[in-house]
Amino acid sequence: MFEVAELTHQISDQDYAEPIVALRTELLMVQQQLKTLDFPVLILISGVDGGGKGELIHALNEWLDARYMHTEAFDQPSDEEQERPKFWRFIRALPPKGQIGIFVGSWYSEPISKRVSGHLKDGAFERALNDINALEKLLTDDGGLIIKCWLHLKKSIQKKRLKALAANPDTQWQVTHKDAHHIKHYDDFIDTAEAVLTRTSTVHSPWLIVDGSDGNYARLTVGQHILNRIHRHIQQRARQQTLPEAAEPDLNLYQQSLLDALDLSLSLKKSDYQDKLAFYQTQLGQLSRKAKARQHSILLVFEGWDAAGKGGAIRRLTYAMDPRLYRVIPIAAPTDEERAQHYLWRFWRHLPRAGKMTIYDRSWYGRVLVERVEKLASNEEWQRAYAEIVDFERALTDHGITILKFWLHIDKDEQLKRFQAREKIPYKQFKITDEDYRNRDKWDDYKAAVNEMIARTSTHSAPWIMVEGNDKRHARIKVLETVCAALTRQLG
Amino acid sequence: MFEVAELTHQISDQDYAEPIVALRTELLMVQQQLKTLDFPVLILISGVDGGGKGELIHALNEWLDARYMHTEAFDQPSDEEQERPKFWRFIRALPPKGQIGIFVGSWYSEPISKRVSGHLKDGAFERALNDINALEKLLTDDGGLIIKCWLHLKKSIQKKRLKALAANPDTQWQVTHKDAHHIKHYDDFIDTAEAVLTRTSTVHSPWLIVDGSDGNYARLTVGQHILNRIHRHIQQRARQQTLPEAAEPDLNLYQQSLLDALDLSLSLKKSDYQDKLAFYQTQLGQLSRKAKARQHSILLVFEGWDAAGKGGAIRRLTYAMDPRLYRVIPIAAPTDEERAQHYLWRFWRHLPRAGKMTIYDRSWYGRVLVERVEKLASNEEWQRAYAEIVDFERALTDHGITILKFWLHIDKDEQLKRFQAREKIPYKQFKITDEDYRNRDKWDDYKAAVNEMIARTSTHSAPWIMVEGNDKRHARIKVLETVCAALTRQLG
Repeated sequence: MFEVAELTHQISDQDYAEPIVALRTELLMVQQQLKTLDFPVLILISGVDGGGKGELIHALNEWLDARYMHTEAFDQPSDEEQERPKFWRFIRALPPKGQIGIFVGSWYSEPISKRVSGHLKDGAFERALNDINALEKLLTDDGGLIIKCWLHLKKSIQKKRLKALAANPDTQWQVTHKDAHHIKHYDDFIDTAEAVLTRTSTVHSPWLIVDGSDGNYARLTVGQHILNRIHRHIQQRARQQTLPEAAEPDLNLYQQSLLDALDLSLSLKKSDYQDKLAFYQTQLGQLSRKAKARQHSILLVFEGWDAAGKGGAIRRLTYAMDPRLYRVIPIAAPTDEERAQHYLWRFWRHLPRAGKMTIYDRSWYGRVLVERVEKLASNEEWQRAYAEIVDFERALTDHGITILKFWLHIDKDEQLKRFQAREKIPYKQFKITDEDYRNRDKWDDYKAAVNEMIARTSTHSAPWIMVEGNDKRHARIKVLETVCAALTRQLG
Repeated sequence: MFEVAELTHQISDQDYAEPIVALRTELLMVQQQLKTLDFPVLILISGVDGGGKGELIHALNEWLDARYMHTEAFDQPSDEEQERPKFWRFIRALPPKGQIGIFVGSWYSEPISKRVSGHLKDGAFERALNDINALEKLLTDDGGLIIKCWLHLKKSIQKKRLKALAANPDTQWQVTHKDAHHIKHYDDFIDTAEAVLTRTSTVHSPWLIVDGSDGNYARLTVGQHILNRIHRHIQQRARQQTLPEAAEPDLNLYQQSLLDALDLSLSLKKSDYQDKLAFYQTQLGQLSRKAKARQHSILLVFEGWDAAGKGGAIRRLTYAMDPRLYRVIPIAAPTDEERAQHYLWRFWRHLPRAGKMTIYDRSWYGRVLVERVEKLASNEEWQRAYAEIVDFERALTDHGITILKFWLHIDKDEQLKRFQAREKIPYKQFKITDEDYRNRDKWDDYKAAVNEMIARTSTHSAPWIMVEGNDKRHARIKVLETVCAALTRQLG
């Protein structure tokens, strides 16, 4: 059973009034401070039916400044939500940095209710909790503060309370069939909840379990807890900023590797190219329609050296498809809404609906490429990113999305040749800037970063495909062929 | 019949190659320039089946820099889209300022297909076209450039082309039942299209009608047209900036009016207040659940003087409802994604799903209040806004959404009293800033703006409700009572 701080005394309305004034003042003051800081606060409210979640939400909405917080109550998922991985709907509703978000119903609701009703076997239940821990770690590692509150009621009190609600015509709507089911299965529910709370009460995001039998007590306790957690988090963040940077990576480790093993002399004759292009484009057209019919989503990632031919390869793909079936997302500087979120948030945003394809022209791998080399991310941040990215991609493949990641490779001489050629073509001139030459000077740093990226993020279900790009014809056909082969395998 | 520039000669692939290089260069150059300018370019591609829309889209995607453009191909609406007014899905996909958006399928698709199939009678057809014209005017008045291209085919050529597509196993998927239907009803289709093009070819957004029988010709013509339109638009915008400002409004006209007629002595005894509060909150709880069951959406707007009690009134509403059924949207400074769109875009974004309520704490009326008084919008902009707002709200009420707009009114003395009282309450201090006092100095300017706003935007289906706010109890009950009465009327 839970260990819940035993309620030694009830708090009368009179005894409640005074501490609440003090608490409200402090909450509003810390909320003012929060606006200037660079982390979000996410408050999850869960608990047993009749535990007083509604009243608690109302109180929080009354205490806090509505302009810098919002409450998200998760109802049945819409079809747009159902067509994406399970966390998508929550991630799109995350509070931005400097703000407070309250989630009523969250990623905990489904695993608990499915487990109680027997629809989640041991292995799947375990995996669901692991996924939750990974997601919460992702957010807290990024500086986010997660505050999780569970409102508990003893069985006898829950029964009494739901009976009272059901007897009053104004409140009986609050008592649903689900509640009746839960009362009946109170013990199962509590066992499940206990397993969930124990497994997900981590150092970085612990649960607060509160006795909900006295509303005044519960609200004061949660309010005070929120205040304390935010204060402590602000102090911790300040302390962390004085810590030394994580160690520099050993660049030599990844100098000799995959990239050097590629045979850049691979090429294709023009006539062969034209035949194969027509063949695979026709096939891709058919496969993309089949994917649509089967509601099978596809995600393609293109990374590569400047001038390696990403755009050209992408156009050979899109040319074969109905424009309703794909979207190309070119990754440029993030907008301020994107900057106010975890770095993966902007990529979650564009995940394809069922049956569609999203093509990312550059991607989340910027974190371990340009952000690493240009020192836009700290060592700690980009080193952590490998695992974050693998988790992210697994969330997508678990949902049934096909992922293929292409690294378009050319050598340094070929790149220079292409830069110079572009400078001569009027409509390509703008593509070459001083920055391209600056990036070129850091070739070896990028090479180490690419090698490490490939080594650490190529997984069975989301593999990297190395494309020898010195010959554009070979590269384009290899991309097309790979996509067709993967889809043929998946769609039978 | 259409007047389509007669095709005097076909353009061979050889004759096509050279002008395309020049065109691409110019398109890329103007796209570079566009990035620095503050208007979006929206290209709509429509036309008869088999007219070559797909090839045209492919060409545009090949010519333009993908980083500053995107193609939106509209498929069946999702449930999230269906639950909103018909334009919602298009508005959320509009290109931001400085970028190009291509729409394949647009707000024209539905009226045309419904009309051809006989599901849109004269009156409704006429209204649908009026709505389109109003929407396009809204966008072009804001500086947006809309380029509309219609690919036409003669009946005999269409037949031949679709037959060829159907005969080839690689392309037969392009020929759907809809196409067969369209061929059969070619004449109806053309008549409808002609009516639509004629009625919607306006000065601000004319149609280009192109003979699609020769693909090279069509692509070159459209490309050249896009280039010309953008060039001309840039010149026009530059010229407009040298025009004198629109006339200053006559403030006296709206000094004596509605606001002065309100009886601010209205008040409510505490015991009456408590009885009524409990009564209406219970009723609102029931009505909000009924609205959810009937999929009936509700939108409430709160405007009023600083310290007039908007927040308090809103909390008395939300307290009565399940947090899953409403959202409060506090309107603060727009994000950069919002700033890059028409000023109404950020409000479209938050429209409620079916059965839900959105409460706007301040709203689009900022355009004709603070932006007018503080001269953040030009005279021309805010004067145009009245009609834009009325159109916007009509789009929502046409969709079946209930709209109620509350102006919370207090007098100048009461405001000062409240400012001073807030300054003494620790957790309210932060609410009072120098800006509040600065706004207060402009009381008469605001008063004229409010009077004019009420006079020009109160409509039968989206009325303003003036709330006498000197007594908070009276104000809160009046708001609750009004919402309950309106919902009771609507939900029976």
